[in-house]
Amino acid sequence: MTSKPLATLDTSLIPRLPQSYVTLFEAKKNKKLSFEDIAKHVGREEVIIAAIFYGQAMASPEDIQKLSELLEIPQDVLESQLSGYPDRGRTMDMPPKEPLIYRLYEIVQNYGYAYKAVLNEKFGDGIMSAISFSTKVEKETDDKGDWAVITLRGKWLPYSRF
Amino acid sequence: MTSKPLATLDTSLIPRLPQSYVTLFEAKKNKKLSFEDIAKHVGREEVIIAAIFYGQAMASPEDIQKLSELLEIPQDVLESQLSGYPDRGRTMDMPPKEPLIYRLYEIVQNYGYAYKAVLNEKFGDGIMSAISFSTKVEKETDDKGDWAVITLRGKWLPYSRF
Amino acid sequence: MTSKPLATLDTSLIPRLPQSYVTLFEAKKNKKLSFEDIAKHVGREEVIIAAIFYGQAMASPEDIQKLSELLEIPQDVLESQLSGYPDRGRTMDMPPKEPLIYRLYEIVQNYGYAYKAVLNEKFGDGIMSAISFSTKVEKETDDKGDWAVITLRGKWLPYSRF
Amino acid sequence: MTSKPLATLDTSLIPRLPQSYVTLFEAKKNKKLSFEDIAKHVGREEVIIAAIFYGQAMASPEDIQKLSELLEIPQDVLESQLSGYPDRGRTMDMPPKEPLIYRLYEIVQNYGYAYKAVLNEKFGDGIMSAISFSTKVEKETDDKGDWAVITLRGKWLPYSRF
Amino acid sequence: MTSKPLATLDTSLIPRLPQSYVTLFEAKKNKKLSFEDIAKHVGREEVIIAAIFYGQAMASPEDIQKLSELLEIPQDVLESQLSGYPDRGRTMDMPPKEPLIYRLYEIVQNYGYAYKAVLNEKFGDGIMSAISFSTKVEKETDDKGDWAVITLRGKWLPYSRF
Amino acid sequence: MTSKPLATLDTSLIPRLPQSYVTLFEAKKNKKLSFEDIAKHVGREEVIIAAIFYGQAMASPEDIQKLSELLEIPQDVLESQLSGYPDRGRTMDMPPKEPLIYRLYEIVQNYGYAYKAVLNEKFGDGIMSAISFSTKVEKETDDKGDWAVITLRGKWLPYSRF
Amino acid sequence: MTSKPLATLDTSLIPRLPQSYVTLFEAKKNKKLSFEDIAKHVGREEVIIAAIFYGQAMASPEDIQKLSELLEIPQDVLESQLSGYPDRGRTMDMPPKEPLIYRLYEIVQNYGYAYKAVLNEKFGDGIMSAISFSTKVEKETDDKGDWAVITLRGKWLPYSRF
Amino acid sequence: MTSKPLATLDTSLIPRLPQSYVTLFEAKKNKKLSFEDIAKHVGREEVIIAAIFYGQAMASPEDIQKLSELLEIPQDVLESQLSGYPDRGRTMDMPPKEPLIYRLYEIVQNYGYAYKAVLNEKFGDGIMSAISFSTKVEKETDDKGDWAVITLRGKWLPYSRF
Amino acid sequence: MTSKPLATLDTSLIPRLPQSYVTLFEAKKNKKLSFEDIAKHVGREEVIIAAIFYGQAMASPEDIQKLSELLEIPQDVLESQLSGYPDRGRTMDMPPKEPLIYRLYEIVQNYGYAYKAVLNEKFGDGIMSAISFSTKVEKETDDKGDWAVITLRGKWLPYSRF
Amino acid sequence: MTSKPLATLDTSLIPRLPQSYVTLFEAKKNKKLSFEDIAKHVGREEVIIAAIFYGQAMASPEDIQKLSELLEIPQDVLESQLSGYPDRGRTMDMPPKEPLIYRLYEIVQNYGYAYKAVLNEKFGDGIMSAISFSTKVEKETDDKGDWAVITLRGKWLPYSRF
Repeated sequence: MTSKPLATLDTSLIPRLPQSYVTLFEAKKNKKLSFEDIAKHVGREEVIIAAIFYGQAMASPEDIQKLSELLEIPQDVLESQLSGYPDRGRTMDMPPKEPLIYRLYEIVQNYGYAYKAVLNEKFGDGIMSAISFSTKVEKETDDKGDWAVITLRGKWLPYSRF
Repeated sequence: MTSKPLATLDTSLIPRLPQSYVTLFEAKKNKKLSFEDIAKHVGREEVIIAAIFYGQAMASPEDIQKLSELLEIPQDVLESQLSGYPDRGRTMDMPPKEPLIYRLYEIVQNYGYAYKAVLNEKFGDGIMSAISFSTKVEKETDDKGDWAVITLRGKWLPYSRF
Repeated sequence: MTSKPLATLDTSLIPRLPQSYVTLFEAKKNKKLSFEDIAKHVGREEVIIAAIFYGQAMASPEDIQKLSELLEIPQDVLESQLSGYPDRGRTMDMPPKEPLIYRLYEIVQNYGYAYKAVLNEKFGDGIMSAISFSTKVEKETDDKGDWAVITLRGKWLPYSRF
Repeated sequence: MTSKPLATLDTSLIPRLPQSYVTLFEAKKNKKLSFEDIAKHVGREEVIIAAIFYGQAMASPEDIQKLSELLEIPQDVLESQLSGYPDRGRTMDMPPKEPLIYRLYEIVQNYGYAYKAVLNEKFGDGIMSAISFSTKVEKETDDKGDWAVITLRGKWLPYSRF
Repeated sequence: MTSKPLATLDTSLIPRLPQSYVTLFEAKKNKKLSFEDIAKHVGREEVIIAAIFYGQAMASPEDIQKLSELLEIPQDVLESQLSGYPDRGRTMDMPPKEPLIYRLYEIVQNYGYAYKAVLNEKFGDGIMSAISFSTKVEKETDDKGDWAVITLRGKWLPYSRF
Repeated sequence: MTSKPLATLDTSLIPRLPQSYVTLFEAKKNKKLSFEDIAKHVGREEVIIAAIFYGQAMASPEDIQKLSELLEIPQDVLESQLSGYPDRGRTMDMPPKEPLIYRLYEIVQNYGYAYKAVLNEKFGDGIMSAISFSTKVEKETDDKGDWAVITLRGKWLPYSRF
Repeated sequence: MTSKPLATLDTSLIPRLPQSYVTLFEAKKNKKLSFEDIAKHVGREEVIIAAIFYGQAMASPEDIQKLSELLEIPQDVLESQLSGYPDRGRTMDMPPKEPLIYRLYEIVQNYGYAYKAVLNEKFGDGIMSAISFSTKVEKETDDKGDWAVITLRGKWLPYSRF
Repeated sequence: MTSKPLATLDTSLIPRLPQSYVTLFEAKKNKKLSFEDIAKHVGREEVIIAAIFYGQAMASPEDIQKLSELLEIPQDVLESQLSGYPDRGRTMDMPPKEPLIYRLYEIVQNYGYAYKAVLNEKFGDGIMSAISFSTKVEKETDDKGDWAVITLRGKWLPYSRF
Repeated sequence: MTSKPLATLDTSLIPRLPQSYVTLFEAKKNKKLSFEDIAKHVGREEVIIAAIFYGQAMASPEDIQKLSELLEIPQDVLESQLSGYPDRGRTMDMPPKEPLIYRLYEIVQNYGYAYKAVLNEKFGDGIMSAISFSTKVEKETDDKGDWAVITLRGKWLPYSRF
Repeated sequence: MTSKPLATLDTSLIPRLPQSYVTLFEAKKNKKLSFEDIAKHVGREEVIIAAIFYGQAMASPEDIQKLSELLEIPQDVLESQLSGYPDRGRTMDMPPKEPLIYRLYEIVQNYGYAYKAVLNEKFGDGIMSAISFSTKVEKETDDKGDWAVITLRGKWLPYSRF
C-alpha cells in the first residue's frame, strides 16, 4: 500500500466512459483503496484492475464478486453494469496529450522500427500479440532516484502461410 | 546469432532517412550480421543498435569505431555521416500501419490511463522518462509457444514545484 | 486462367514500394501471367501472391525459387530483393480512395459493431487474428450476375487473464 | 444459443445512436437473448440483426413485428422508432480503436491492393457491391483452437460504358 | 406521392440542427407527408424542401406560410424559428460515412479533374456556381431497373480580370 | 469544337499520375484537340474521355485503337501503357482546393442529407450507384448568361435482405 | 437600417459559445435590431459588434453600458457575463463549411502567396498584424448588381533583429 | 518601384508548381523587377500578377505577350507554358504555417461569423463571390508606422430560388 | 495587484474541465482576486496557480489549505475536488485557435529546429525537460511600449546509454 | 566555443529546405563552427543564426557579408541564395515528433491557458507578438545538473478598438 494520493476519475472523462465506472471510482475513493490494494484482493495485476476501472478490460464473474465485496457495491448492481464486452480505446485521443501517456507513445514512435527489426530477427515474420498479452508495472530505486519498469509480454504470432 | 532471415532496409523508407543509413544496412546485409551480432560487438543493447540504424539514436565516437571495424566501412566516412544529432521520429507515420508496431501503439491506446493511474499511485505526480530510459527485447519459450518480452525502464521525474 | 486484362502496377505507386516489386510486375506483364497462374505454380492462394507483389507479405525461400522459375528472374536477384521483412501497410492511404477498396472499408465502418457483438457472443472477449489468418477470393455466378465472395478466416484469440 | 455473456450496449455509444436502440438493447438484456436467438426468430442473419440494433440497417415491417413479439415491445412503439432510413456509419470513428474491429480494418489496409488485383483479374474493371451484399459469421473449431470465419458476398458491378 | 416509408429525422443528428427542425420533422411524420407532397404544396423542388428541413436552406416568408398551413404549425412559431440565415454545412462530417452520400462524394473525388477539364474547355476559366444554382432528383425506370438522375445546374462565373 | 483554350496537364500533378498520361496530354496539346473532339472520334462522353486522361477510367481495346489513330501514338505503346486497371482517386486531395471542384464538393456537403431523404422516399433504402453510372456536362445559355448543367445518372441499388 | 431579415443565433452553435451570448442574441431579435443599428448606438464598427456577439471580441465597460441601454439588459448582468477575456476562435471549425465563410478562406488559400510576395516587396520582411487591426464591410451597387467590399487594415510589423 | 529586396521563389515550393513558374521567377530576379513593375507594364493589379507567378491565376494572351516583352522570355515558350487552366490552391497547405499568411487565415477564423452576420443583414441570404472578385494591397503610413490595407471586393450572389 | 479586468473562466470550456474548477473560478471572480494575488498568498508562481485553475497542475495539501483560506471554500470540499492527478492537456485543441496561444505555438513551429540545434551544441544529445521545469511571466516597459517576457527553465536530460 | 559535436543538417530535411541551406550547413561542418561561433562573428543571437540556417529567418546584407567571410562562401553566391523572403514554417510537421521540440510544444499545450490568463491580467486584451520578438538560450549549472533556460520576449499588442 502506498502513501501517495490515490488516483481518482477525472470528471471530464465521464462522457467517454460507461456510467458504471463512475460508481467504481467513487467507491474506491471513499474506501481509500489503491489499485494495488484492489489488485491484491482480486488476485490480478494492478494494471488490469485499473484497466477494468477505465472500461478497457472485462471483469470475470469472480472479479465482480470480489470487487463487490471489497468496494461494498451490491453484486447484482455491479453484474448488471460490468457484464458487457468493453468497447476498448474510446477513452483515449491519439496522440495522447497527457505527458505521462505521451512518453509511452513517443517510445513507440521513436523505437517502433527498431523493435520490429529486432523482433523479426529473433522470431521471424509476425507480431507480438497485444491480446494474448500481459503487462505489469514495477518500481525500482537506486542512488540516482526512482525508476519505473513496465514489462510487456505477448505471445509471438507468426503470419499463417496460405 | 539467429537463423531467421535478417532485417534489411525497406527501400521505400529511404527518402525519410539520412542517406548514410542506406550504407549501414547494405553493409549489414553483405556481412550477414544480425542486430544481436552487432550489439555484442559494440557492447550495447540490440534495440539501440537498430535505433542507430534507423536514425533514431546517436552513435558515440566509440560506437562509430566499432561499427567501422565490424562493418568494414572506413571510419572517417562513418564519422562524417553519423556525427549529427538525430532528428528523431521522422521515419514513422502515426498511427503506425505496420501490424507489429501497431500492436505496441494499441497497448498505449488501451492501457494508457491504467498505466497512468498505477504509476501515479506508486510514484506521485510525474512521468516516466523516455530519455533517461532504456529498453530491451527478450525471447521466452514455453509449451504454449514463443513469447516476446519488452522491458521499458525509465527514470521517474516528479513535476517541479514552482 | 482468365481472359480479363491482367493487373499491372500503377506507376504512381512505385515510390511507396520497394523497388524490387517493379521487377516482379514487369515480369508478370511480359509473361502475361495472372495471379491465378502464379498462385497455382507457387502453390499458394491468389490473394497472398498478389500481397507479395505489393510488398504486403513475405516470400519464403521456396516461394522465391518458384517465382524465379516462372517469371525467369535470376534467383539470387529475387532472393536479394525479397528477403527482408515487409513494412506492411505503406502502399495504402486510409480512407481508401479507390472505389473497390473503399467498399471493403465501408463494410468495416458500417458493420464493425455488429461483427463485434456477434463474435463476442459466439467466442467471448477477444479478437479474430489478422495474423494467424487466411483469406481467399471466389467467383460465383447465378442468373442475377456475378458475385464476389471473400472469406476471412482468423484464429480466435481470447484476452489473457493477468 | 451460446453460454458466453451477451453483448450489451456500451452506454458511451448512446449519444451516437437514435434513442430507440437503447430500448432494443435493454429488452435484449432483460430477456437474456443472444443475437443468434433473435436472428432465428426473425429469420435473418445474426450480423444484420446486430446491425439493426446498432442503427446500421433497416428493419422491414415484418422484422418489426417479430422483434416486437420476441422482445415484448409494443409494435407501434417499435414501428414509430424504427421506420426511418438509417443514417449509416455514425457509430464508428475511423480508424477504429476497438482491437477486434481494428483487425478487420487492418485486413483492408494490408490486403486492399491484393484484393483489387485479384478481383480485377477475375471480373474485369468494377467493384464488389457493399449494398447488393450479404455477410455472415461462423465458428470453426479444430485442434489448434477456435477460428472465426467471416464471409463477404457482394454483387460484381462493372463500370458502365458511357 | 410515393408508397415508400417516409424519411424521418435521425435523432442522433439533433444536436447538430437548430431545434426548430425537430418540430418540422415531427409534423411531417405525423401528417405522413413526403417531401414530394410538401414540395407540391409549397411550389418548390423536393431537394430544396428537404434542405430547408435539414437547416441547409432558407425559407422565404411565403414558404413559411405554406409550411405552416400544411404542417399545421402556428405561423408565428415557424416564423420565429426559421427566420435566421442558415449556418450551412454543419450537419455533415466529411468524408461522409453514409453510403448513399459517400457515392456522391466519390463522384467528385474520381471525376473532379475530368469535370474541370471539360468545363474549362466549354466555358473558359471560371467555376460553376453552387449558389446561383438549382438541382433536382428524378426517377427513371427501364428493363434493367430503376435509375436515379440528379441534375446540377449552376451559373457559369468567369474569373474577373483585375 | 470550342475556341476556348484547351485543358492541359498541370505538371505538378505528374507525380500522381501513371507516366503514360503525360504522353496523352502532350499529344492532345500538339494536335490542338479538345476533349469534345476526342470524345466524338472515340464515340464516348467528354467526361469519361477526360477521366481516361487523368487515369480515372479504363480504356477498352477499341478506345485505345481510336485514341492511337487520332493522337498518332503507336498503338502498342498506348496498349502497353493503358491496359492496367486504374487506381482511381489518387489525383485528388480531399477536400479539393481547386475552386471549381470545391463547388461540387460543397453541393454534396450542403445538400447530402436532402438528396438522401428525397432518394429514400422515391426509391426506398439503398444507394445510387457511382459505378453503374454515367454523367455528362452540357452548356445552356439564356439572357442571364451561361449555365453549366451536370447530369448524374446511376442505377438504384436496394440493400439486399439477408 | 436594412429591410433584410436579421441575423439570429444558430442554436446549434450555442454549446460553443459562452452562455451570455444567447441572451444578447435573444434581446437583439426581440428588439428587431440589426448590427448596423447596434453599431451606431455603441459607436463602433458593425463587424466588431457582431464579433462581440459571437464571443470573438471584448466589450469595454462603455460598450457594455451602451449595449445594456439599447438591449434593455440589466447592466450588472451584462457586466458579469461579458467582463472576461474572450477565448477567440472556438466557434469556427476550419476549413469552414459555411459557403459564405469558405469563400473568404478560399481567398487566403488561393492568393496567400501572392499577398505575401506583394506585401514583402512593399514593406520588407514582416507581417500585417491581425491584432493592431481593423476591418469593415461595405456595400456597393452598380449596373451589374451588388458588390460586397471588405477592407482589412493592419499595422505592419517588421521582424525584430536580434 | 520599391527599394525592398524582391520576392523570389522559395525553391522548396518548386515541386508544387508547374515548372514554367521557375522560369518566370528566374527572369524576374535577373531583371530585378518587382511585382509592381510588372503589374504596371501588364496593366493589371500587383496581386493578380503575383498570383500568376504562383500558378493561381490565368494569364490572357495579351498578358503573356507583355510578360514576354518585359521578362525577355520568348513568347512561344511562355505561351506553351502558361496556356493551361490553373489548378488553383495546390501551393498552400492549410492551416498556413507562414506567419504572414496565417494572420489572414486567423482573421477568417475569428471574424468569419461576424462577417457572415453583417453581410447577411446587408445583402440577404447569399455569398460574396471569390471568382467575380478583385483584390488589391495598399500601403498607408501615419505617425504610428506603416499600415497594410487589403481590399476584397466580390459580387454578391443571392441563393437561387428553386 | 493589477487594474486590468480579471481573467474568468470561458463557460464554453466547462465541459473540458473537472467540475471543481468552475467553483475555483467563481470564487476568484467574487473575491476579485488576480492570479498574482493568489500566487502571493500561496507562495507559488502565477503561471502554476493559473495552471491549477485550468486543471493542468496538481495542488499540494498546503496549496489546498491556502486556496481554501483565501477563496473561502471549505477545505474538505476543495480537498475532495482537487486531490486527483490531473489529466493534463485536455483543455487545449491543437493547433490553438486563440491568437495569444497561437503565437506561442508559432514560435515552436518556426524556431523549433533552431532551438534544437543550439541546445544540442550547448548540451549534447538530449532534451530540456518540461516536467523538471519551471516558468514565469514578467512585464517590461520601455519607450516602445510593453513587453511580455516568458522564461522557460528545464533540466537538461541526456539520452541514457544502453 | 563548445566541445559537444556540432549540429549538422539531417539530410532527410533537405527536400523541405531551399537548396542553398545545404551549402551553409556543409560549410559550417567543414569549418567546424558552432552556431555560437557564427553568432559571435555575425553579432546576432545563436537562435536566430540557426533559424537563418534552417530557412526560418532573413539574413540582412551585412549578415550575408559576414557569413560569406566566415564560411568562405563567395558573397555573390550567398546573396543570390539568401536574398528572398523566407517561407517560414515549412520544415516542421506539427505536432513535432522530435522529443526535444515536442517538449516545447507540450509546454504550450499544457500551460497555454495559464499563460493567457496571466498575460491578460497583466496587460489586458491582446497578444505577445512573435514578430516584434526576440529569444535566447542559456545554460545554467547547479548541483542538480544542467538547466536550459529559454527566454521569449515579445512586444505586447493590444487589440485595436474599431
